Amino acid sequence: METAILLIQCHDQQGIVARVSECIFRHGGNITDSDQYTTDPFGGWFMMRLEFAYDPEKIDVAALQTDLDELAQTLDARFSFHHGHATLRMGILVSKFDHCLEDLLYRRRSGELQVEIPWVISNHPDLEDRVRAYGIPFHHIPFTKETQDSAEQAILDVARDSTDFLVLARFMRILSTDFLDAYGKDVINIHHSFLPSFKGADPYRQAYDRGVKVIGATAHFATADLDEGPIIEQVVQRVSHKDNVNELKRKGRSLEKQALANAVLAYIQRRIIRLENKTVVF
Amino acid sequence: METAILLIQCHDQQGIVARVSECIFRHGGNITDSDQYTTDPFGGWFMMRLEFAYDPEKIDVAALQTDLDELAQTLDARFSFHHGHATLRMGILVSKFDHCLEDLLYRRRSGELQVEIPWVISNHPDLEDRVRAYGIPFHHIPFTKETQDSAEQAILDVARDSTDFLVLARFMRILSTDFLDAYGKDVINIHHSFLPSFKGADPYRQAYDRGVKVIGATAHFATADLDEGPIIEQVVQRVSHKDNVNELKRKGRSLEKQALANAVLAYIQRRIIRLENKTVVF
Amino acid sequence: METAILLIQCHDQQGIVARVSECIFRHGGNITDSDQYTTDPFGGWFMMRLEFAYDPEKIDVAALQTDLDELAQTLDARFSFHHGHATLRMGILVSKFDHCLEDLLYRRRSGELQVEIPWVISNHPDLEDRVRAYGIPFHHIPFTKETQDSAEQAILDVARDSTDFLVLARFMRILSTDFLDAYGKDVINIHHSFLPSFKGADPYRQAYDRGVKVIGATAHFATADLDEGPIIEQVVQRVSHKDNVNELKRKGRSLEKQALANAVLAYIQRRIIRLENKTVVF
Amino acid sequence: METAILLIQCHDQQGIVARVSECIFRHGGNITDSDQYTTDPFGGWFMMRLEFAYDPEKIDVAALQTDLDELAQTLDARFSFHHGHATLRMGILVSKFDHCLEDLLYRRRSGELQVEIPWVISNHPDLEDRVRAYGIPFHHIPFTKETQDSAEQAILDVARDSTDFLVLARFMRILSTDFLDAYGKDVINIHHSFLPSFKGADPYRQAYDRGVKVIGATAHFATADLDEGPIIEQVVQRVSHKDNVNELKRKGRSLEKQALANAVLAYIQRRIIRLENKTVVF
Repeated sequence: METAILLIQCHDQQGIVARVSECIFRHGGNITDSDQYTTDPFGGWFMMRLEFAYDPEKIDVAALQTDLDELAQTLDARFSFHHGHATLRMGILVSKFDHCLEDLLYRRRSGELQVEIPWVISNHPDLEDRVRAYGIPFHHIPFTKETQDSAEQAILDVARDSTDFLVLARFMRILSTDFLDAYGKDVINIHHSFLPSFKGADPYRQAYDRGVKVIGATAHFATADLDEGPIIEQVVQRVSHKDNVNELKRKGRSLEKQALANAVLAYIQRRIIRLENKTVVF
Repeated sequence: METAILLIQCHDQQGIVARVSECIFRHGGNITDSDQYTTDPFGGWFMMRLEFAYDPEKIDVAALQTDLDELAQTLDARFSFHHGHATLRMGILVSKFDHCLEDLLYRRRSGELQVEIPWVISNHPDLEDRVRAYGIPFHHIPFTKETQDSAEQAILDVARDSTDFLVLARFMRILSTDFLDAYGKDVINIHHSFLPSFKGADPYRQAYDRGVKVIGATAHFATADLDEGPIIEQVVQRVSHKDNVNELKRKGRSLEKQALANAVLAYIQRRIIRLENKTVVF
Repeated sequence: METAILLIQCHDQQGIVARVSECIFRHGGNITDSDQYTTDPFGGWFMMRLEFAYDPEKIDVAALQTDLDELAQTLDARFSFHHGHATLRMGILVSKFDHCLEDLLYRRRSGELQVEIPWVISNHPDLEDRVRAYGIPFHHIPFTKETQDSAEQAILDVARDSTDFLVLARFMRILSTDFLDAYGKDVINIHHSFLPSFKGADPYRQAYDRGVKVIGATAHFATADLDEGPIIEQVVQRVSHKDNVNELKRKGRSLEKQALANAVLAYIQRRIIRLENKTVVF
Repeated sequence: METAILLIQCHDQQGIVARVSECIFRHGGNITDSDQYTTDPFGGWFMMRLEFAYDPEKIDVAALQTDLDELAQTLDARFSFHHGHATLRMGILVSKFDHCLEDLLYRRRSGELQVEIPWVISNHPDLEDRVRAYGIPFHHIPFTKETQDSAEQAILDVARDSTDFLVLARFMRILSTDFLDAYGKDVINIHHSFLPSFKGADPYRQAYDRGVKVIGATAHFATADLDEGPIIEQVVQRVSHKDNVNELKRKGRSLEKQALANAVLAYIQRRIIRLENKTVVF
């Protein structure tokens, strides 16, 4: 038996669940998990995630796909249908801080994150040995204000065909809107604050100066508006006056690792639907 | 438009979602929320909670009920169908500690808990004025080891017809299995520890003596096995060596209020399915 | 035996702990709790909170006070010495939302908050009965943009001599800098967001629109800069896309109650030292 | 300037803080952090942790040590005085699960845990390459019920002189009381449950079967009573009915890493005082 996932997004209307589940049932699938969300039952958005088990020997996936396409058209809906053993390919961009990188590499090696990592790119050469120790190619692409255009082109040349999505694992350069447009797929960033607090540079210093009693980290989709993209996951922890900036950074590293790992796991399990500037995480 | 809720529990089989959603669709309902859980897609239990909006002018609820009954029989399933404006009636048993009681009375008065409270029973007279200030009848039923049988009978006489479920809001007497059987409906208890740690008497003292760094409170269904019933909700908080037993009790009161209120809210929203000695809380 | 508390703030220098503890020891006090914090051991601020037990029959408090005054002068320090049974007097300002008010009144009645509440002021008449049910005077002082000056004067007339500090328990009017200056004592506010996120109006709506995955509440000292005063306490909770604005408000009420109660408890236990725009909470 | 730490434990009596701080002051130290705790101000235990800065050029540490020894005798106290650059040596025992091991090795390499790791011992050969990649010696010592005596002797031969304390980073063998006695220094264990819940084998399975809504991990000192030693740190996380045993294990791994890392950090910063079967963690 194999598992397929169907993500649905459309304007709310009567009978969506009935029609979709009937279609899967008719083709021999057994829905094992379902979650739905409606922003407003009268005129809002309808979103659904269905997981179903099927026997690849008995089910005609192409025929199911055709019927789903037709149904999507009828409902004026956006269907994303994922089946088979396709493992997502995740490119990682990193600078010098390696805690998020190491955490992702470890979780992948341990099997917790079932994802392919075709390469790691950094604007610094420092982490090459660490990455190669995991048997993963490492590309050093210098990236300064002056070389931004050519650096982004170099990243694009590597990333476009080899990845399904990118993760900025404490990549300290800001990617341009042109880059994001040209890449055209999802980019997940980890910001080391509880957004929308403390956007921009040195958020732990900002948090210290403001005297907050709780710090956080935020994994979000990168968009043209820096630190304004749809939030996927936030993790927080209590702190006190005794925590200086270095101590906030130390505690924050655990939060950053956790928030990013949770976001990546939800992403590869196809649990995330982007809706305008927000996310639904089933 | 009104809202109806359907809870389903049956052995997993193909087509459940399709059939149920088709039935609701055919009768004119619009599923606005759905959540499902399968203990094991191959031979396990299937559970689902569906919320749907309907126009009472246009839908024939009796006909829908008939079709649902038939479907339940076909699927060998247990359906619980709730519609209309029926507000659940919650009887509260309490002893001397009044924090959970006050919290429930306040949340009901503020409209957060949409529940009817026909009375409060206590084995002590102390809280009579507080309860009457909320305009709720108060019954003082003394309850000692010697008078347990007659006390339970007195509670039963009051509770049987006037309530849909009971809440033990720090009721310091142990109700017998005979009482639970005779009452026959759900009884929710708040235990002032993170079960299964520190069952029995004086759990904050036990927690202090053990030197735990986190304390908790547990709302659960009362069963014949004391402190062993299905857990509905648990809330926890960090503590330190500086917290003596009184401080643990103070912090614990907040946890008890929160855990019990969450459990009651989930209960009256029909989010809970009991499955053997566990709960599914949608 | 009675308990006294000494709060110290001065520039860091050698021997502070030694001198202060020697002074208390010499007069017969037994230090039962101490906590200190230094922003920077080389040129920073030194802060300390000492709790000591003493026998009022045997200790000459006036003589101790004189010696402490002298020591404070020697160290160029600010000492706050609290002894005897003085219960702080807390004035409460509230509008229509009553959850924080009820929580404070309940905690005081239960003995958890050992504080005197001379009165409750509201810009609406709605909560009069609730407050009087606790045996506490209630003053209705209408407060609009046009009447702000006279309203603040009326509050001041009531508050100046009858209170040691004020609590804004969801008081929906902004007090002017003139009022804060004229009152001259501490004012604690509860803001219904995780500051500095979502300052200003309707923070739960802002949180919903931004799609955050964690919400919070912040208790802080009110200052001339709205929502910018020193933070005393923050409490947070996970939320999801399923939580609409009303659900955020419901969950937020629990956070607001908890954050404000924690802040008030710390305040009356003299655990808070304000340091520029931050707090040290021992 | 260097930093020294003094831990004090004695029966509570008047003047301890005064005498100790006077002694440090007289020798030229500047107390930069202090924390104290008294189990009961009248006849209980007094514990204190003092951190002070000193100029090794100007302070006569030997003379200070002599005075402290004398003071300890006068107060009938146990003083632990730590100064200079002595880095603690931590031996790690592990079986096959490597998440805690990797986390400790990473935190040490990144400088977060300033500790020396002379070796890693495992009862399985699997992790040898991983450990050697960090440049740390690896010893494979098979350990079965039949070979327990000789295995423990082999561990003891390696550990006794080369370590200051041991960490059991998911070491799946139970060390005998004889071993613990013979080793004679502290042994920190990570238990994969929220103790005292779910002692013994397969705690995530136990947690799943009991249907708890929160899981946890506990770092504690290993003692003769299995899973009963003094608790140092506990970390918890909410779970739901959707989390099967594997999902609990996945979430639990993050908790285990965090609890163990926090405990080790507190240990090497000399923040822990054992008091009977509990800990004070300053």
